[in-house]
Amino acid sequence: MQTLGIDIGGTKTAMALIDGKGFIVAETTFATSSQGPEHQIQLLKKSYQKIISNQKEPQAIGIGIAGQIDKKSGTVLFAPNLDWKYVPLKQMVEASLQLPTAVWNDVRAAAWGECLYGAGRGSQDILFIFIGTGVGGAVISNGKIQEGASNIGGEIGHMVIDIQGRKCTCGQTGCWESVVGGWGITQTAQEAIAKNEKRGSVLLKLAGDKMEGVSAKTVFEAFSQGDPLAQEIVDQVSIGLIAGVTSLVHVLNPARIVVGGGVFIGHPEFLELLQKEVPKRCLSAAAKSFEIVAAKLKENAGIVGAAAFAREIV
Amino acid sequence: MQTLGIDIGGTKTAMALIDGKGFIVAETTFATSSQGPEHQIQLLKKSYQKIISNQKEPQAIGIGIAGQIDKKSGTVLFAPNLDWKYVPLKQMVEASLQLPTAVWNDVRAAAWGECLYGAGRGSQDILFIFIGTGVGGAVISNGKIQEGASNIGGEIGHMVIDIQGRKCTCGQTGCWESVVGGWGITQTAQEAIAKNEKRGSVLLKLAGDKMEGVSAKTVFEAFSQGDPLAQEIVDQVSIGLIAGVTSLVHVLNPARIVVGGGVFIGHPEFLELLQKEVPKRCLSAAAKSFEIVAAKLKENAGIVGAAAFAREIV
Repeated sequence: MQTLGIDIGGTKTAMALIDGKGFIVAETTFATSSQGPEHQIQLLKKSYQKIISNQKEPQAIGIGIAGQIDKKSGTVLFAPNLDWKYVPLKQMVEASLQLPTAVWNDVRAAAWGECLYGAGRGSQDILFIFIGTGVGGAVISNGKIQEGASNIGGEIGHMVIDIQGRKCTCGQTGCWESVVGGWGITQTAQEAIAKNEKRGSVLLKLAGDKMEGVSAKTVFEAFSQGDPLAQEIVDQVSIGLIAGVTSLVHVLNPARIVVGGGVFIGHPEFLELLQKEVPKRCLSAAAKSFEIVAAKLKENAGIVGAAAFAREIV
Repeated sequence: MQTLGIDIGGTKTAMALIDGKGFIVAETTFATSSQGPEHQIQLLKKSYQKIISNQKEPQAIGIGIAGQIDKKSGTVLFAPNLDWKYVPLKQMVEASLQLPTAVWNDVRAAAWGECLYGAGRGSQDILFIFIGTGVGGAVISNGKIQEGASNIGGEIGHMVIDIQGRKCTCGQTGCWESVVGGWGITQTAQEAIAKNEKRGSVLLKLAGDKMEGVSAKTVFEAFSQGDPLAQEIVDQVSIGLIAGVTSLVHVLNPARIVVGGGVFIGHPEFLELLQKEVPKRCLSAAAKSFEIVAAKLKENAGIVGAAAFAREIV
């Protein structure tokens, strides 16, 4: 059976025809429309026709998209990066492409892809952590994604770890992503530079002397050049990472923890750090019960997971 | 079917014969032995003989005990309040009372009791939060307790919420129980008094002018007398409570949250506070998906839950 996986990100949309074993048969990407849902559907249709021009038609479509989804109706309740609100995506895609369609949160789709074909293979109880601009996750228990009562289970980025910290985009104070997510690191760096421009000179220079150019990436670059401020910021992020993962070990007690995402990949030392420090900090009964591994499928996890999910609705 | 439920606490042990519908047929309590496991088993045997003197023998025994348990062997790995380490409790009780025995963590037993016969009835996806001296919990998903890979799932008291806060007994910094648990509140109060004895005079007086007598209970008493320092401490605890529960809504997305424990009961305003504030602070998709209720069975939850669990091993 072939299904179509679509991953709609804030800047890029990926689409792939996937076979029953999770292999990519054909794929394409295009810039996500900034002109709203209708235009995005037109772009999807164009790419779809291209992709199936010399292939067998898929039997269903799975879509992963960054936002809160009403699973039953396939409506995108809110997708801040796309500025979409209450978009009946499933209905629109089904009307346009004439195929049964399911809509998932993008992190959950990626987690499902990793679970079936990537770093999660062989385990039934996995915590998936995705550290990008924000922090997302998914809990797989007994081989099933824990969706929760309103389909937001696994929103681990909005777990408070620093109650004396900064305001999060969600309105709470000190959410995990405000410490370890890309936007949190960016803010930490920019605040530190504003406070002491001399100490921040290396970071600032790497960003072309523009404060708004300083990002998590800049911090990691400056770190590898031995910059003391970058070192301090990375240390702070490390403490936050360890605390958050340890917290989740205590709440969920997973057998395997799969970590991915741009920020995590941007500083390869994070993996070893977590592998070394989390077992030391958690309750003794848990210390030997889990392994921490890096995600494997990288940018393909979402399309592969969405396509796998589509198989369930055929 | 009748089973025996036992709840071994740091100071008190409760034992009850429970029928198949969760009703208490006969019960007794005694002071937990401070002379170690062998002596505790002798006390258990004495009470057991008393309880069944004019009753039908139970078919199995369920024990809830405050500590980390190896579920398979029924060994108490570590019970700090009893100062027990690696005690083969299941084996010892089976040898002494000649009945199949199962050992559980006490919070999990209480959660299971509440789930079947108390505030959890009618829901299959419950988060149980127990705020006493420490903070414990249990996650019930699809009607089943989520034990986790090494039987510590639901150790929500060791979720970090205040990374800039105080050291926890577990070695981490800023665990939830170091902010909202009885010992955390006690420490907060004592530190505040030490810092400014004049501001702490009401608290100190309520504790018989003895610093070591100041506890969470003293804080709640002083609060109801309108003491400004107590008000400040309660506010701090409130912020911590709201943050922790909101975090767990995001990670687990439960349909019902059942809260109990001495500290929670000690300040009845906490329930309404959580009911009002948590929905405001969580992601919009979650806000209407859960209810927060108080535990119902109080001190009986543990024996009822342990006895219910015993039915599963008959």
